[in-house]
Amino acid sequence: MESYRDKKQLKVDHMELLEATAPGIDLADFMPTSCIPPEELMEMVEDLIAKHIKYKPWKTFCKKVLNDEEIRTRMLMAPGAKTVHHAYVGGLLEHTLQVARASMALCDVYPNLDRQTLLVGAIFHDLGKAWELSGGLTNDYTDEGRLLGHIQIGQDKLEPFLKRSKTLEDSLKLHLKHLITSHHGEHDFGSPVRPKTPEAFVLHFADNMDAKLNIIDQAYVDMDKTGQEWSPYMRFLERNVYRAPGTPDNSKKNDDKPENQCLLPLKA
Amino acid sequence: MESYRDKKQLKVDHMELLEATAPGIDLADFMPTSCIPPEELMEMVEDLIAKHIKYKPWKTFCKKVLNDEEIRTRMLMAPGAKTVHHAYVGGLLEHTLQVARASMALCDVYPNLDRQTLLVGAIFHDLGKAWELSGGLTNDYTDEGRLLGHIQIGQDKLEPFLKRSKTLEDSLKLHLKHLITSHHGEHDFGSPVRPKTPEAFVLHFADNMDAKLNIIDQAYVDMDKTGQEWSPYMRFLERNVYRAPGTPDNSKKNDDKPENQCLLPLKA
Amino acid sequence: MESYRDKKQLKVDHMELLEATAPGIDLADFMPTSCIPPEELMEMVEDLIAKHIKYKPWKTFCKKVLNDEEIRTRMLMAPGAKTVHHAYVGGLLEHTLQVARASMALCDVYPNLDRQTLLVGAIFHDLGKAWELSGGLTNDYTDEGRLLGHIQIGQDKLEPFLKRSKTLEDSLKLHLKHLITSHHGEHDFGSPVRPKTPEAFVLHFADNMDAKLNIIDQAYVDMDKTGQEWSPYMRFLERNVYRAPGTPDNSKKNDDKPENQCLLPLKA
Amino acid sequence: MESYRDKKQLKVDHMELLEATAPGIDLADFMPTSCIPPEELMEMVEDLIAKHIKYKPWKTFCKKVLNDEEIRTRMLMAPGAKTVHHAYVGGLLEHTLQVARASMALCDVYPNLDRQTLLVGAIFHDLGKAWELSGGLTNDYTDEGRLLGHIQIGQDKLEPFLKRSKTLEDSLKLHLKHLITSHHGEHDFGSPVRPKTPEAFVLHFADNMDAKLNIIDQAYVDMDKTGQEWSPYMRFLERNVYRAPGTPDNSKKNDDKPENQCLLPLKA
Amino acid sequence: MESYRDKKQLKVDHMELLEATAPGIDLADFMPTSCIPPEELMEMVEDLIAKHIKYKPWKTFCKKVLNDEEIRTRMLMAPGAKTVHHAYVGGLLEHTLQVARASMALCDVYPNLDRQTLLVGAIFHDLGKAWELSGGLTNDYTDEGRLLGHIQIGQDKLEPFLKRSKTLEDSLKLHLKHLITSHHGEHDFGSPVRPKTPEAFVLHFADNMDAKLNIIDQAYVDMDKTGQEWSPYMRFLERNVYRAPGTPDNSKKNDDKPENQCLLPLKA
Amino acid sequence: MESYRDKKQLKVDHMELLEATAPGIDLADFMPTSCIPPEELMEMVEDLIAKHIKYKPWKTFCKKVLNDEEIRTRMLMAPGAKTVHHAYVGGLLEHTLQVARASMALCDVYPNLDRQTLLVGAIFHDLGKAWELSGGLTNDYTDEGRLLGHIQIGQDKLEPFLKRSKTLEDSLKLHLKHLITSHHGEHDFGSPVRPKTPEAFVLHFADNMDAKLNIIDQAYVDMDKTGQEWSPYMRFLERNVYRAPGTPDNSKKNDDKPENQCLLPLKA
Repeated sequence: MESYRDKKQLKVDHMELLEATAPGIDLADFMPTSCIPPEELMEMVEDLIAKHIKYKPWKTFCKKVLNDEEIRTRMLMAPGAKTVHHAYVGGLLEHTLQVARASMALCDVYPNLDRQTLLVGAIFHDLGKAWELSGGLTNDYTDEGRLLGHIQIGQDKLEPFLKRSKTLEDSLKLHLKHLITSHHGEHDFGSPVRPKTPEAFVLHFADNMDAKLNIIDQAYVDMDKTGQEWSPYMRFLERNVYRAPGTPDNSKKNDDKPENQCLLPLKA
Repeated sequence: MESYRDKKQLKVDHMELLEATAPGIDLADFMPTSCIPPEELMEMVEDLIAKHIKYKPWKTFCKKVLNDEEIRTRMLMAPGAKTVHHAYVGGLLEHTLQVARASMALCDVYPNLDRQTLLVGAIFHDLGKAWELSGGLTNDYTDEGRLLGHIQIGQDKLEPFLKRSKTLEDSLKLHLKHLITSHHGEHDFGSPVRPKTPEAFVLHFADNMDAKLNIIDQAYVDMDKTGQEWSPYMRFLERNVYRAPGTPDNSKKNDDKPENQCLLPLKA
Repeated sequence: MESYRDKKQLKVDHMELLEATAPGIDLADFMPTSCIPPEELMEMVEDLIAKHIKYKPWKTFCKKVLNDEEIRTRMLMAPGAKTVHHAYVGGLLEHTLQVARASMALCDVYPNLDRQTLLVGAIFHDLGKAWELSGGLTNDYTDEGRLLGHIQIGQDKLEPFLKRSKTLEDSLKLHLKHLITSHHGEHDFGSPVRPKTPEAFVLHFADNMDAKLNIIDQAYVDMDKTGQEWSPYMRFLERNVYRAPGTPDNSKKNDDKPENQCLLPLKA
Repeated sequence: MESYRDKKQLKVDHMELLEATAPGIDLADFMPTSCIPPEELMEMVEDLIAKHIKYKPWKTFCKKVLNDEEIRTRMLMAPGAKTVHHAYVGGLLEHTLQVARASMALCDVYPNLDRQTLLVGAIFHDLGKAWELSGGLTNDYTDEGRLLGHIQIGQDKLEPFLKRSKTLEDSLKLHLKHLITSHHGEHDFGSPVRPKTPEAFVLHFADNMDAKLNIIDQAYVDMDKTGQEWSPYMRFLERNVYRAPGTPDNSKKNDDKPENQCLLPLKA
Repeated sequence: MESYRDKKQLKVDHMELLEATAPGIDLADFMPTSCIPPEELMEMVEDLIAKHIKYKPWKTFCKKVLNDEEIRTRMLMAPGAKTVHHAYVGGLLEHTLQVARASMALCDVYPNLDRQTLLVGAIFHDLGKAWELSGGLTNDYTDEGRLLGHIQIGQDKLEPFLKRSKTLEDSLKLHLKHLITSHHGEHDFGSPVRPKTPEAFVLHFADNMDAKLNIIDQAYVDMDKTGQEWSPYMRFLERNVYRAPGTPDNSKKNDDKPENQCLLPLKA
Repeated sequence: MESYRDKKQLKVDHMELLEATAPGIDLADFMPTSCIPPEELMEMVEDLIAKHIKYKPWKTFCKKVLNDEEIRTRMLMAPGAKTVHHAYVGGLLEHTLQVARASMALCDVYPNLDRQTLLVGAIFHDLGKAWELSGGLTNDYTDEGRLLGHIQIGQDKLEPFLKRSKTLEDSLKLHLKHLITSHHGEHDFGSPVRPKTPEAFVLHFADNMDAKLNIIDQAYVDMDKTGQEWSPYMRFLERNVYRAPGTPDNSKKNDDKPENQCLLPLKA
């Protein structure tokens, strides 16, 4: 930074092309990132596992997958989608965390559900997205992503861990694979198989709902800036969305929101 | 009851046709009823209101509607649907309670939602069903039910209470009406308007999910009797459903279920 | 208006913002309006009532609704839709009149239809549109319009009149409400309930046909200017429309059309 | 007919298999037939032509087609459909007449329509049905009917008459062919081309409406016998239909209906 | 062509508007044309007839149609579609040839098919396109094309030849007409009747596949220029298409393609 | 077999329950089987590989998979579907062979296709069906089949072979996986990803066409017995199918068909 004719001037002496994954490089310095840093989101996911998963083989399985270096690195950086929702570094983890939380909250209302398998399914349902999208500065689909889709990629990534787990029952492995394969809910949305267990229905609902609520939350951020009550037409939702005036004296305080625009609740 | 040639014989001296609503007649003696008696379900609903609704005008509104004699009587007897789900006395209340619980559980995960308006919407979203179906021994659609549908009927029943409430803001009234009108989620499912607020999305998901989980639960009851892992083809879900073997040592005990086949959690 | 360097110049000394409903203001001076003034269209509607409705309670009901000050004022100004068809002051009345006329014409061909209930349904089927759209210079959807839709709004407006009418049979009230609720014909088009009486089918057809013929008529006006035989692609109809050369010596004279571009027949 | 042990007995001396088209055989003696005899329906159609068609080449064209011996014979016997609507001798003519009447009634409401071309289209829109169905005692689809459909067959039958008419403008011929080809309204219903002129829209609506009203009328005949207000589920309409109580003192007298169950108005 | 200030300059002395069909005018000099000249494509079609059609009446029928002057002229110039595929002079013949070749190749795999009728159907399935599109420099739909569609037009053109052929069995004529009428496969794609014989299924598949492969081939030509592996989003296919790296040492040589961009195999 | 009172009598001394896969047991003795024995079909598949696949890594890959004992055993026994098509021992191989043949035949017509990758895709596209269906005497879906579907199962079976092949390019592996994943063509039919290469389009068409032609062939076998020209309504095809009279003197002789009802051509 120099001065030139009384104006500040950026002088570039030297330029170097760094890989996005080069040591010391934090992509979050260059790109929109989740409010809560990805590492903290990952810890929150691990806390959920610690809290809900009591069955040793599931616990081990989750630990092995999340501690795999390539998987962990990619999960920390991955967006939740290309453009529609959670399109920022940490977006995949933020979405994963909320789907897992919603699933656990629903297990309190429907206690007959297999809470542990459902949680494993929630945590890994979109794993393939970490390879479906290139992430990084140009967040585009990869060849693999377009030709196979994230459901297939996710299955391929989990398969070796499932094979290696000798203690996990085949029926649980099959149920987990079903949860992942069916989580889009309908053929139309790219699920080769539709949900056939209550856990698969719940995972699909939680996934679908979180994606939509995130889209609306982002529209709200823009509407806050302009003071509009109605969003512009949103192609993905095929409608305009509305911010209804809230119930007065609502026990919920919105105080944390204006501060950092961080829509994810810190502890839910 | 007499004996005739060593066989017990029922002798009918006198028959009288009683109205289903005659005093001293409890339809639940003649028909399948929710495990938890409707009166207790109603209390649980009122407990939810007491716990979550802090805004006086909402509290008063709920109380006025639920204490209206015709409304309360009909809500206590009404089934949740004609045949597909919750097709028993108390079914409407059971469905209402679970949708309300699920909505509140999701408000913990998404704290920006307007929890109070959502709860009022959840409690009254299917109110019209108490008139759409005749209930009673022949649970068929009424003329009104077929010609207007339960969304319109429900709006008509709530309208006078909304008009009488001078303290409730017009914007909250409008939001409540939107929640009810849009709760089927899509035009295809009979919603004249689709959800346009996050609360409306959540109500639609909770409603849809509870109906489906109840259908599966009822299929499970039948499958338990025959020991099958797969249900027969279920027309409404357009698929067979599967009972996946649960995670071993699951913290959830199934002990209460075999006893009374009561699928609704007592305290969620 | 002054002269400035030999050019006429409009000089504004004073500007005042007037409400569109201010006394002495006729919106039609500022906006496109139906060829036949709204007041005359209203009289034509009232003539139809006088001609076809013999049953006193229906006659009284119609008079009460049409003479309600807010309703009458709004009906006179309301467009028939936001942009697609009848998007001008008087458009709602013009559409209402043609749907009513078409319904009556079809009663001659199908004499078993309940002509009177059908006419009442035709006249009030789109009543809610007078609140769904803001009308005026910026003809946009109102909050109420987007969150409830004109079918629900219309029902809400008619409900008090229906309640007050002690002589009208409940079955006729129910039929009228069914006609309004089902007039879009299919769930897909926002009808919560589909037509279940022949009168409801006829009203739906007449409504649908009039909207489409009005769209084509407007395209013809544009095509007349350019001499084209084919319209540009029309998004709402999802096609181009064609003006076929007419049968020669057709008894119909087109003479009145070029004069005033008024497509509505003066006496049908 | 003899007597045998005091019981009447039918004695068959001789049996002969007669062609349905054999001279002296009137199929109507053996099969359900339209209330108004087909010959009278044909006269009513011809009266409509006399009344509305002033253009000589259209008049000649209609006469030539209707006086073709094979065409006239088949039109007189043909049903309107296989089972769904107008499934009786004379059904095609009854349907044709009502579609033509409805089209003419709508021309009064929309006077810009080309009334004459529309009438010719209405009269011949279903001509192919006279070959699509075998008619007679076993009213099944013919090979031609299944492999080409009645739209194509009708075009093939009219083509020679169109070619022979030297005075009719090519543009009118093309419009007529368009009316026939597009009369099902949507690709889904088997129209290779969708309506692109207002006349084609009106013909499609009139055709669709008449088919549905005839189905409902037939359901009403059955409901009258059992006193039901609701029909059974009707597969073609995908709903139950309702007979709403009519407006009292309705000017329409239902007296002629109970007498002969003839639903077609004698003079409309 | 002159020189003006050292630059070449085109000087126009005289301009004359020539009809596209004027003698001595070859449209191919002004417009994109198939790599193989239309006349050669026509010969290839005739070679296929010579090779596969042994039944005299079919042979005669094909010859008569193809040697009709108007038909031959139009077939030689016609594009295969307006914009989507084969949109160049000779496109219709190129498409026709490939559909015919694919059909014959499939007859080797499914020898029970009626190879000869299928070939006649393949050759004439899109005949109507030669009138549906104006072809020439402004390749737009004709009135006839928009109002009737190419299926109907094609039938009309073949009808006189079918009538004149006394030796061809009616059942074969009917089968040919069915092949043409059903070749779009589904109502949605404008087929008034869906395929009901195996030959009709095969023709539909071959037609559909050739159109799509031609679209992809054209996308590949563009991708070759830019070196992209993925095409832009293709509206008609509703996706991006990918050029997968081929199997090495593939016996197929791509040598002829870079030279002339001619995608049609010279001898298949 | 004994004689008892002059009647033959089967006397069972001893019964043993044998596994369907027990040595010396040929399921084909107890069940409908493909005309050509599965072993011969497998040889035909291997001949196709020998003829078309020149690239060593593909050749080795195919050999490794087909010689895997479990895979080969299951492929030899598997049906092509549960009930709709190829529902007999050997059905999967028969379908596989025809899809492969059709794909190769189409490569002659479209020589730019990657013939080798396409053939590998054709041979393994339905591999998962050998585990999706139990095969054997009760040919029902397995849990795995219902919860994952044959596309996912097939990928899982091929994955280890793909991993082990060090010489095969990643891009070819990816293309093969895309061919399998997209072969149902549309999301609606359970493809998580739609075809994005011309080879994937061709495989989808060949698969779809062969399934439909096999269904029709089986209908023809039944129709031959009763002499009908039209099949009964076929739920899967949603239509009746027709056997059109063939072109006379057709070069194809049907002589082999009446003998053994074997619809698969011996050499195509």
